Amino acid sequence: MIDLRPILFVLGILLVTLAVAMVAPALADAMSGNPDWQVFATSAALTLFVGVTLMLSNRARVRRLTLRQTFVLATMIWVVLTGFAAVPFAVADLGLSLTDAVFEAISGVTTTGSTVIVGLDRAPDGILLWRAVLQWLGGIGILVMAVAVMPLLSVGGMQLFRVEAFETPEKVLPRTAEISAGITFIYVGLTALWSIALWLAGMSGFDAASHAMTTIATGGFSTRDASVGAFDSRLIEVIIVLGMLVGSLPFVLYLQTVRGNLGALMRDSQVRWFLGIALGSAFAVAVWQWAKSDAPLDKALVASAFNSISIMTGTGYTSGDFQAWGAMPTIVIFFLMFVGGCAGSTACGIKVFRFQILYYSAVAQVHGMIRPHGVFVVKFNRRPVPDAVTGAVMGFFFLFLTTFTLLALALGALGLDFMTAIGAAATAICNVGPALGEIAGPSGNFAALPDAAKWLLAAGMLLGRLELFTVLVLFSRTFWRG
Amino acid sequence: MIDLRPILFVLGILLVTLAVAMVAPALADAMSGNPDWQVFATSAALTLFVGVTLMLSNRARVRRLTLRQTFVLATMIWVVLTGFAAVPFAVADLGLSLTDAVFEAISGVTTTGSTVIVGLDRAPDGILLWRAVLQWLGGIGILVMAVAVMPLLSVGGMQLFRVEAFETPEKVLPRTAEISAGITFIYVGLTALWSIALWLAGMSGFDAASHAMTTIATGGFSTRDASVGAFDSRLIEVIIVLGMLVGSLPFVLYLQTVRGNLGALMRDSQVRWFLGIALGSAFAVAVWQWAKSDAPLDKALVASAFNSISIMTGTGYTSGDFQAWGAMPTIVIFFLMFVGGCAGSTACGIKVFRFQILYYSAVAQVHGMIRPHGVFVVKFNRRPVPDAVTGAVMGFFFLFLTTFTLLALALGALGLDFMTAIGAAATAICNVGPALGEIAGPSGNFAALPDAAKWLLAAGMLLGRLELFTVLVLFSRTFWRG
Repeated sequence: MIDLRPILFVLGILLVTLAVAMVAPALADAMSGNPDWQVFATSAALTLFVGVTLMLSNRARVRRLTLRQTFVLATMIWVVLTGFAAVPFAVADLGLSLTDAVFEAISGVTTTGSTVIVGLDRAPDGILLWRAVLQWLGGIGILVMAVAVMPLLSVGGMQLFRVEAFETPEKVLPRTAEISAGITFIYVGLTALWSIALWLAGMSGFDAASHAMTTIATGGFSTRDASVGAFDSRLIEVIIVLGMLVGSLPFVLYLQTVRGNLGALMRDSQVRWFLGIALGSAFAVAVWQWAKSDAPLDKALVASAFNSISIMTGTGYTSGDFQAWGAMPTIVIFFLMFVGGCAGSTACGIKVFRFQILYYSAVAQVHGMIRPHGVFVVKFNRRPVPDAVTGAVMGFFFLFLTTFTLLALALGALGLDFMTAIGAAATAICNVGPALGEIAGPSGNFAALPDAAKWLLAAGMLLGRLELFTVLVLFSRTFWRG
Repeated sequence: MIDLRPILFVLGILLVTLAVAMVAPALADAMSGNPDWQVFATSAALTLFVGVTLMLSNRARVRRLTLRQTFVLATMIWVVLTGFAAVPFAVADLGLSLTDAVFEAISGVTTTGSTVIVGLDRAPDGILLWRAVLQWLGGIGILVMAVAVMPLLSVGGMQLFRVEAFETPEKVLPRTAEISAGITFIYVGLTALWSIALWLAGMSGFDAASHAMTTIATGGFSTRDASVGAFDSRLIEVIIVLGMLVGSLPFVLYLQTVRGNLGALMRDSQVRWFLGIALGSAFAVAVWQWAKSDAPLDKALVASAFNSISIMTGTGYTSGDFQAWGAMPTIVIFFLMFVGGCAGSTACGIKVFRFQILYYSAVAQVHGMIRPHGVFVVKFNRRPVPDAVTGAVMGFFFLFLTTFTLLALALGALGLDFMTAIGAAATAICNVGPALGEIAGPSGNFAALPDAAKWLLAAGMLLGRLELFTVLVLFSRTFWRG
């Protein structure tokens, strides 16, 4: 059996953190004179109590966690914290069922951004802030996991990013804990920077902080029903586009940049591919829009960049319904969901480095067919990629699409139409937010879906955010057999 | 430079064969008193002339072909023969443009079965027979390639099926040429058997022969606008379902069965997976249909089995519009397109053995994550799969989906709506036939698409039928550099 005590101890610490985070929306509500502050105060007390109890009753000497314990912990963190994060949604006067509350909470912590709340414009400040805080915590959570946990677990090729691989020539970044601290510092700094920029661009302080949190976390929860479109400001959209791009790059490279390795970002091939795909797609969609309508090119460029980069990075803000732009933008944006951002960022999806490895590997295949006795090495960032990593990436790619397929089939069996089922399955597993069709599309709301579909989508979000393997391992008999 | 003479010589032989095949529709037209026989006589004369010229002018001693020559030949065969096969369509009085003629011809030889001819019910016998003959020739063409050529070229893991792998314990199947001859014999026999069965079930001799050819070839061209639905016979549909299944199994196993290895088919894991997926999906769709409508279960079973197995095997007959059955059947049938049949059959798609290897490889990944120092071998049919094969299968899977994506994007850029673009891209590259939506769906006709879309789809069919790599290799600079 697996010794659960250290796992429960860590969970206790994180629950205490979550309880502290609940103070922010409580204060926001109290300041705006909304009685909802009691919801958050009560939720915080409950969460704090459970957290402290877990800590005290499992005060095992936390030595190193075993591989199995790490797997169990990685999934449990997200499940348990989502459960407590859902409490305020369930208790507050929003008319949400338990299913809805869990859906909203998991959509938050996984930085997906699909919502079941109708009437954000009239929702109390506390709830709006709580949604932003959840995404922000989910963002830093996944950053730390991508740097410290997933490479150790060898999830889908993430072993490529073991810490030693990031050592600068001078070995100035020696340890995981130090890197995690540095990344957290940068994350906080970027959020502050974008808060100020959005505030200067005309948002209220509250909206600016909320959107800065969900931008850098590539989360996509907004304080308005019409998402960022409600602010109707080109400047705000441009600032957010930059923020979403910043949130989708490998944060370790920011750390290296800050420490003096100024070329780190631009020399990274994943960054170049990512920016190439993002800007190329945005430009293509803009040209199509410009050619098909009488919209001026600059307007088309901003609208296209905002919506396509929002979807690609898995943020999920919208400034209108891209489906109204016609066939080509919808298809481009659908496939962009799967691409996602860079490994080690807050962005989601299959991730750019996997496409690079798959592409280089396919090229090596072609060369191998022409010269059956040649040896062709797959390289990433000018270093050879071990065969085990290539295999892991390919396994991930296959499992990702299989999960997507099964999810779409299950949604179809619940009666969702083709576009909605395909779109919702993709948006959940890629942690994007909006999907396709009338119900789940950019102008729709997931509230209208049946409960079973919401639970399936919630599971899809969790699987996608934890890069499948982290969760699926727990379903293997070998895992529990000891 | 590559010595083209032996390539042109082989092309000449095949053109002569094609010219001989054109005699059949000429006779059919002449017998039914249709002046169209002149179209086929002229086309046959032209094709014969070019074929004989190529043979005589390139009578090099045909030694072994080099690897490069084999690649060039493999693609040129399909392109050149399609060109000549299109002549009757272009010349006959069908109102087809050159684009349409080429589309119809390539949809025939690749056993896809998408059509641009409106009014099959009134079309001359010669044209109807020519469509069936093209698919039948395409079927045996791909069978021989899958046994004799693709394993040598190591296309997408097909090296797994090198002839030695199929040796029975007694080594009674020693050589490729002998196997090819045996397979051709079985192919002819099965076609004859199904012709008789369909004739006994009530079809005219002409319809029976035409449908038998396009059934065993998993092609899907019918002699009627309403496809097999026009015959409104449950018996005919059941006979055709069995024929499509027979056409989708590895023909080498029939050869082994005939030669006394009676358990060959049932012991083969690819056969078991294929039948499991095909029958499981058909059953699931039937149950859905039965639960959602007041159709009796037996009627739902036949309709579901006919249409879903027709799509999965890449045949493409229909007996009605499956899109009218609702969300779940449409989604199931869409994903079934990609699955396809077994390697070494006339069926298309990604093929079942690749999904088996991808699945076992993903399972091995999971075990490797739990036991980082363990060694987990991927097996297929109880034999270990070399890493190179696993890599090739994964490369194929990635390239297949990339090609699908690019094709769908290009179709979207031409203005096709989401369902039509996604469906048509899938149906072309998977060589299925009907797609989704109103225009390209089971009740539609590809004639309504713009010319550029038809050319793109034609390219997609060729890429899919030749398992991508065979063609893509020719676009590599390394290939031509010598």
